[in-house]
Order: sequence, then C-alpha cells, then structure tokens
Amino acid sequence: MPADETPTDAETACFEAGIKFGSLYHQFAGTPVSPESAPDLATAMEESIENQPHCRAVTVDVRTAELEAELAESTADYTELTGRFLEVEIVVDYEGCTVVTRMAMEDGYPLMRLESVRE
Amino acid sequence: MPADETPTDAETACFEAGIKFGSLYHQFAGTPVSPESAPDLATAMEESIENQPHCRAVTVDVRTAELEAELAESTADYTELTGRFLEVEIVVDYEGCTVVTRMAMEDGYPLMRLESVRE
Amino acid sequence: MPADETPTDAETACFEAGIKFGSLYHQFAGTPVSPESAPDLATAMEESIENQPHCRAVTVDVRTAELEAELAESTADYTELTGRFLEVEIVVDYEGCTVVTRMAMEDGYPLMRLESVRE
Amino acid sequence: MPADETPTDAETACFEAGIKFGSLYHQFAGTPVSPESAPDLATAMEESIENQPHCRAVTVDVRTAELEAELAESTADYTELTGRFLEVEIVVDYEGCTVVTRMAMEDGYPLMRLESVRE
Repeated sequence: MPADETPTDAETACFEAGIKFGSLYHQFAGTPVSPESAPDLATAMEESIENQPHCRAVTVDVRTAELEAELAESTADYTELTGRFLEVEIVVDYEGCTVVTRMAMEDGYPLMRLESVRE
Repeated sequence: MPADETPTDAETACFEAGIKFGSLYHQFAGTPVSPESAPDLATAMEESIENQPHCRAVTVDVRTAELEAELAESTADYTELTGRFLEVEIVVDYEGCTVVTRMAMEDGYPLMRLESVRE
Repeated sequence: MPADETPTDAETACFEAGIKFGSLYHQFAGTPVSPESAPDLATAMEESIENQPHCRAVTVDVRTAELEAELAESTADYTELTGRFLEVEIVVDYEGCTVVTRMAMEDGYPLMRLESVRE
Repeated sequence: MPADETPTDAETACFEAGIKFGSLYHQFAGTPVSPESAPDLATAMEESIENQPHCRAVTVDVRTAELEAELAESTADYTELTGRFLEVEIVVDYEGCTVVTRMAMEDGYPLMRLESVRE
C-alpha cells in the first residue's frame, strides 16, 4: 500500500468509534423493553460496550417519554428497542486521539455522528 | 385441523417457554462481557425477557469462575457471552399451567430443558 | 418432581418449536433489509434455524409489499427487519410428534402461534 | 467545537467503515451455522450490510475448514457463528474517500483492521 494510504491514528480512532456504535446498536436492537426495564438495560449496554478496546465511556439514555407515548397507543406494555428510543454518546481514546460520537434522532431517523476528533 | 391436533394449554405454555429461551439466548449471545460487567448484564437479561407475555420469572447466573478461567488463558480482559458462561431458569404461566425450564452445560453443550409442567 | 409433572413428548416438541421461533426472531431482528436483499436473507434465516435440533422445516416470507410501502414513505432505501415484515412457519419433529407453528401479523402485532400438535 | 476538531472526510469515512464492521459482527454472531448453510449465510451478511449508507462492497468468507474441524471434534453438526470462522472485507466510499477494512484471525483473536484510506 502506498505510504500515503496508511491510516493515521486519528482515522484509526474514528474506525474504532464506529465499531463500538455498530456493535451497540446491532447487539441490543430488538431487546424487549419497557419503561421499568429501560434503566437497567441502558446500564448493561454501557458496561458491555465499555469492555471493548480503546472505549473510554459510553452513555446510553433511553427516551422514556417516547417509549411511553408509543405504549400508550398500543395494547402491549413493552416494545422492541430501536433507534428512536435511544440517545447514545461514545468516547474513544486511541494513541492520544480522543473521538466523540453521538446517536440521536434527526428528521425521523437515528443518525450516528462523529462529533469531534482531538489529536 | 382435526380436533385432536388442537394444542392444549400445557402445550401452549411449553411453546411460550421455548420462545423466551430462544429470545434470551439469541438476543444476548455475542455481548462483550467481563467479570465486572456480568452482574448488570444478567439483570438486564432477566428484566428484558420478563417483559414478554406469560413470563413469570427469569433468573440468569453468569458463571464467573468459568469466565475468569477463560480470561486467565488469554490476553484479553473480556470475551463474548455464550452458553458455557450461563445458567438460566425461566418460569412461564399460561392459563393456569406453570412450566419451569432451565439451561445449563451438559457434556460440554449448553442444553435448554423443560423441567416440569404443572397444570 | 412428581411423576405427573414430567413433560410429555408433545410438550417437549412444543418447547423445542418455541426455541426455534425465539431464536429466529431475536437473531435476525434489526438486520438491514431492502426489497433486493430480502430473498437471500429469508433463505439464510431458514437454513440457519433448520440447523437446530428437531427442526424439520422453516419457511420465511418477507412481506415485500409492506416493506416497499414503508420505504416509499421515507428517504431511506432500506430499513430494519422486524415482525411486521415477516411471515414464518416452523415445523418441529420430536419423538414422533409433529408441531406446526406460525408467526403472522394480527391486530397490528406479530403473533407467534402454535397451530397444531400431532402425536 | 474548535475548528481543528471538526472531522475530516477521511475520518468520517473511517467511522462509517467501523459502523459496518460492528453491525455485521454483532448482528450475525451467534447464528446457527453448518458447512452446508454457511455460503447462503455469507451472502445474506454481505447484502444486508451493503444496504447501509456509503457501503460499496462487503465480502464474507466463512472459513469452512475451521468450521469442519470444530464439528469433527463434537457430537453436534452445527455451531454458532463467531469470529474465528470469518474473514471479512468491507469497502466504504464517503465524499471521495475510499476506506478498506478487514477482519481476520491474529494471535487467536478476530481483529478488525483499517487497511487503507485513499482520499
């Protein structure tokens, strides 16, 4: 590979941050969730993904109001975890680079975004 | 369908218990887990599956000794959740029938078993 | 355990059928899916679950019309697999008992049902 | 955020590539797999992840020899999909940047690596 295609530390840090986001989402999407079980699920999601290499901190907020609104319109008392019930921040450290990433709803979709890269 | 092929309440209770086991296993298998994060993951697994219909109680024990033994032989400080790290009991109630089911290691495999059916 | 709480073969067959349904749903829910990728995903779902013990046949139909209707209302060209896009039939054989189970939409929910138990 | 912390297109491309890898792994890890079902599962994994934004190509090879070796030592005829049975390449295009990433076994672990970043 040409020298100028070698990834920088900042690029690797961003790759690592993306892995954490994809992991978190696809491991836990589909989990049965209710307003009562949401806080412990959020804690488990944080701690699980923080086990992964270079992961400094994961913060998961379940949007309980959104969850309650959906359940109020249905006959069920739980639903499946999906992006519209989640706000997530993940911070990754790799070789001195710190990357902050976030997932939140935007125009009706849960978007994962790279917020900042500090070398 | 012939009348004698109509499921009994006990059979439906057993079907419901199986759904809970398959759900629990395939939702959470692959989750990054360490001895430190295992207890909160176990709690989240219990509460998530207890949301499902007819599910009275879920008890998840992560076999920490087995987990530590595996990590002691490796350079990693976490691994992926899989059957050999789990002991699970699930109790389902359906129309007056109580079904107790259990997953534990047997001959090197995690087996899911129907323990008792009480009508 | 009292003798009369020992599961019958038919009850065990129903438990096994439930395991397959829970496995299928929670393994694959959340998978990115489009009308183009749906048929091969359905095939992989069938073959994966047919690997499990006592599983005679799995038939997965992705409800393409429903999928296309949802995508027509959005700016995305794929979505996440969930129950409202699926019709599934699973047949389990256990010790001479044949159990037929089905998942389909009912009143807006994907319901898993035990259809028949033949001893 | 300070201007110099704004992610570059190359960094965003790397983040997107990481998302695809984490998604692929945690969506499909745990799937029941045999030498016979492996090829169709690999196809479904490729097509599913290729649905995600900015994803040009996904190539999944199931290491059949490794799978057969494991099954030869056991009484089962299938196992759960996990990293040691997989070789994966993912190519992402984002705003003119092309990122190539790969997962393969290294020292007994499945490592996800950023191979090259071409702007």
